[in-house]
Formats: sequence, structure tokens, C-alpha cells
Amino acid sequence: MTLALVGAIEAGGTKFVVAVAQPGGAILERVRLPTEAPGQTMPQVVAFFRAAAARHGPLGGIGVGSFGPIGTDPGAAGYGTILHTPKPGWAGTNYRDWLAPLGLPVAVDTDVNAAALGEWLAGAGQGVDTLAYTTVGTGIGTGVIHRGRPLGGFGHYEAGHIRVAHDRLRDPFGGVCPYHGDCLEGLASGAAIMARHGTGLDRLADPAEAIALVGGYLADLAVNLVLLHMPDRLIFGGGVMKAPGLIATLRRETERRLGGYLVHPRLDPGLERYIVGPGLGDLAGITGAIELGCRAAREAGGPG
Amino acid sequence: MTLALVGAIEAGGTKFVVAVAQPGGAILERVRLPTEAPGQTMPQVVAFFRAAAARHGPLGGIGVGSFGPIGTDPGAAGYGTILHTPKPGWAGTNYRDWLAPLGLPVAVDTDVNAAALGEWLAGAGQGVDTLAYTTVGTGIGTGVIHRGRPLGGFGHYEAGHIRVAHDRLRDPFGGVCPYHGDCLEGLASGAAIMARHGTGLDRLADPAEAIALVGGYLADLAVNLVLLHMPDRLIFGGGVMKAPGLIATLRRETERRLGGYLVHPRLDPGLERYIVGPGLGDLAGITGAIELGCRAAREAGGPG
Repeated sequence: MTLALVGAIEAGGTKFVVAVAQPGGAILERVRLPTEAPGQTMPQVVAFFRAAAARHGPLGGIGVGSFGPIGTDPGAAGYGTILHTPKPGWAGTNYRDWLAPLGLPVAVDTDVNAAALGEWLAGAGQGVDTLAYTTVGTGIGTGVIHRGRPLGGFGHYEAGHIRVAHDRLRDPFGGVCPYHGDCLEGLASGAAIMARHGTGLDRLADPAEAIALVGGYLADLAVNLVLLHMPDRLIFGGGVMKAPGLIATLRRETERRLGGYLVHPRLDPGLERYIVGPGLGDLAGITGAIELGCRAAREAGGPG
Repeated sequence: MTLALVGAIEAGGTKFVVAVAQPGGAILERVRLPTEAPGQTMPQVVAFFRAAAARHGPLGGIGVGSFGPIGTDPGAAGYGTILHTPKPGWAGTNYRDWLAPLGLPVAVDTDVNAAALGEWLAGAGQGVDTLAYTTVGTGIGTGVIHRGRPLGGFGHYEAGHIRVAHDRLRDPFGGVCPYHGDCLEGLASGAAIMARHGTGLDRLADPAEAIALVGGYLADLAVNLVLLHMPDRLIFGGGVMKAPGLIATLRRETERRLGGYLVHPRLDPGLERYIVGPGLGDLAGITGAIELGCRAAREAGGPG
């Protein structure tokens, strides 16, 4: 049986990456579109899939990894619907409605769950049973892959909003989260760093204290992930993590906070094997979205 | 086909509850044994199962819910082995070795995962997709049931050791955790309360401030559970939770910390339906252990 091709969308706050790929992941064609209002962007996405299918062959399913919050429960009415978002026009938008004219099964998950799935399939998380992938960019999010599937409960995880130990004597900055002020995202995201320091970590003349602060806050997340998911590996990616020295600080502070309580071969001394950067870089999200599309095709029992 | 009976062990720090039950959960016979050294306790357990099987019929499997930390990965060499523990003689003990003379499939999980499973099957968590069950007693632990199975990664969860926001001006107590000092268990467990207040919450003349403190620390756990597992329900049980007003404080502080960020029908205003006490009381652990035994029997393809 010939497996059908799949369509994939990585929907970000500023751009959409849209691709048609072989079920094994090889991308045949890809475009980038600016994230405008849904009425501008989504018809271009549909037109791309139609044109690409005409050139390469029929699609069996479409996978979407999108900014959120978004409905990710295939059994619920709001599956594929973007919830509250400041992006004009996107709140209430449902990907499945926009893609319905294509007549294909559609699977939707968050951008970070798609990237986590991509890293698990083909990146730095290959072959592990439980993987936690965190992106530290404008916002902070974590996707947990357990036995090949993104975990979630009544909704997708919101790891960016955990409380962290905020010592206001050391860091008087109040945080930027409109809901919580000084939650993790409020203190350690790219937006928080810009607000506190006026520039990115990589452009500070003397970044040592900023790296120590941000690394410590991220270590609070790493420790929570360990204690509440016991992942086989933690991947930390995103623009903020590119700051020199940050991942080393994160490893050191995580190990210090764990305090020797957990003894397990997974937790190597120094955590250099346990806490790692991503393997796929900017390709993690679209790789995961392609896999979501493959699964949608298989589960629909279609030609894929 | 007649389903075989199952054996179940709820292994606690001070007592063992050992039972023989029908696969549907009805207990036919039950004993309590003091937790002595394994060489004293375990032969009595084996003798009980032998005698009960002679009276009621053959067993198809045995389920164990035990104090830990303990190996819970059926694919690993240390499955069923108790790791470090201060209880004399128990470190390194493997339940499967002690039960091997019975020639039955044995499933082992933590006491809190077994209780979580029991509450999911027959208690306050019936019918939900994702359930987090926390016990607040001498120690603090959480089991998460997702689609009928306890979740875990390279080991079982250790929710008791998360960091919480510790304001030393308000609460100068340094905490009792030998590893972390003022982690959640160090500040809010029954042992911590005894060390800080000299008595239990229910015996304080004016418990308001103590209830507020402990409820706030537990709310830090509840928020982490929500953000990192999005459970459909949180159950909080154990001796400490019996203190009047504590669960109300926990609900209020959890809602306050979530700050209105999550809007979902599961999160009722006031959280009275979301955060609840256990439904089975002291029977949760043995109920879950019986289910573990049933599953061991089924997965072994035996007469059960």
C-alpha cells in the first residue's frame, strides 16, 4: 500500500510554516506565511495544500502545531479552537473549520507539543519513554511526550505559569505576566528579560547576574518537571536558551535543588546528559506537525 | 470462565493490610500485620495467602501498594525493590522475591499510586480521564491516574519534594526534610506540623495561622499539578487533611494563585467540585492494590 503524503502547519505568533511531506518526514515543499488575521492566512494555507497536492500527489491528513491556548482534546467540541489570545481575529478560530474544504482528517496540538513530538521522533529525545521539551522564547511552554504521545489532561499543560521562588531583594522586578505577575513566564521569558534588562541576555555587557537569575527560575521548572513527570530527558530550547552559559547554570541549579534526593542512572552527575539542547533546532515544530498529520491519516483509516 | 481471586498488600510504614478479594473488589478476608523486618512480616503474608487460597480458592495474581521509594517499572531489574528507607531491613527488599514461592504474577506500585487507582475505580475520582490524588500524612505524595493507569517516568513521582514559596518572615521554621529542608514535605507534612507546632493541626488552640500556612503550601502543589497535569479532579486525603478548614483554605489559595488564567468548566468557582476529599477513606489503598492484582493476573494470561 502506498502511504499518502501529509500536510503540516506550524502556526506561530509571527509566521506560519506550511509543508507537504512524505509520511517518513521528508519535506517535499514548504512555504512561510506571515501570521495575519485568519481570513488572510488560512485561505493561503488551503491554497498551498491544494497546489502542492496537485504537484506531488494526494494528502492523507493534516497536522497542526499551533500557538495557544487551544483545544487539544479530540473528543471535545472545542478541538482545534484557539481560546483567548491577543492576536487579532484568532480567538475562537478553529483550524478544522478552515481546513474542512480539503476533506482530510486533521490533528491539532500546541506548538510546543508538536516540537516535543518532533524532538522525540528525530531530535534529542529519540528513543526515550518520557521526554519533557521546554521552549523559552517570548513565552515559556513545556510539552511532555510519554510513550510517543503528548500528555495532557483537561487541556494542554501551562508550565510557563508555575510559581517560582522570587526573592524580591535580589530581583525587585515585578514580572510581566498579566495574570500572575512574577510566575516563571513573568520573570524568565524573553519578554520578561527585555522588560527587566532592556535587551536580550546575549547583548548584556555583564550578563552573569542575569544568567544566574534566569537559570535559577528555569531550574525551578526543571525540578518540578522531574518530581511530577520523572522524564528520561529534559530538552530546553528557544531563543533565550541560546545565551552562553545559561544551560550550564540551569544544570547546576537543577542539581543543587534536587539535593541528592533522587539517585538514578538517568541523572548523570552534572546533568550534561540529562538536560540538553534541542537536536532539530527550528525544524522540531514542523517535524512534529508532520507526525500529527500521519497519525490523523492512520487513525482515520484513510489511504495513509 | 471463572475469574480467579486476587491477593493484595497495602504496605505502610507501621502496618501491612493484606487481603484476598474477588476480582470485582469485594474483600473475602483481610488481616493487619505490624510492619516489622521483612523476615518477620513477609513470611506471615505468604502464609496468609496460602491459607486464604485453601479456604476461598486459588489466586490469579497479587497486587502490592507499598511505601517507597520503590522500583515501579515492570521492565527494569529493580521492579518491586524498595530503595533507600530508614525502616530497618527494608532497603533492597524485593516483594517479588518474597512472593515468588506462591508462583503468581505480582504487580507492584507505590502506596499513593495504589490509593489513587482505588479512588479512580471506586471513590471520588470515578470516571475521570486524569486524576491527581495527594495524601498529606507523615509525608506527602501524589499519584496521577491517566486513562486508568498510574503515570510515571523513570520512577514514580515525588511531589512531596517540590519547592514552595517559603516566606521566612511569616514562617521562620526551617523545615524537616533531610534533603531539602523547606520543600513541601519539609514544611507541610504531618511531621513538619508536629515539629513546628508541637502538636497536630486539630489540637491547636488557635489553628487559624497554621491552617493558612499549610493550606498555602499545599496550594503551591495543587497549582503545579494543575499546570503540569491538568487533572480533571484533585483529591487531597491523609490525616493532615482532616483538620477543619484546611481543604477550604486549600481551595481558596489554589484559586487565588491560578489568578483566573485558566477558564474551563472543570474549574468551578470556589473549586468545591474540583478539589475534594477521598471517597474511600482508609480503603483506597487496598482497593487499588486489589486492582493491581487483577491486572497482573490478566496480563499474565492466567486463569484470571
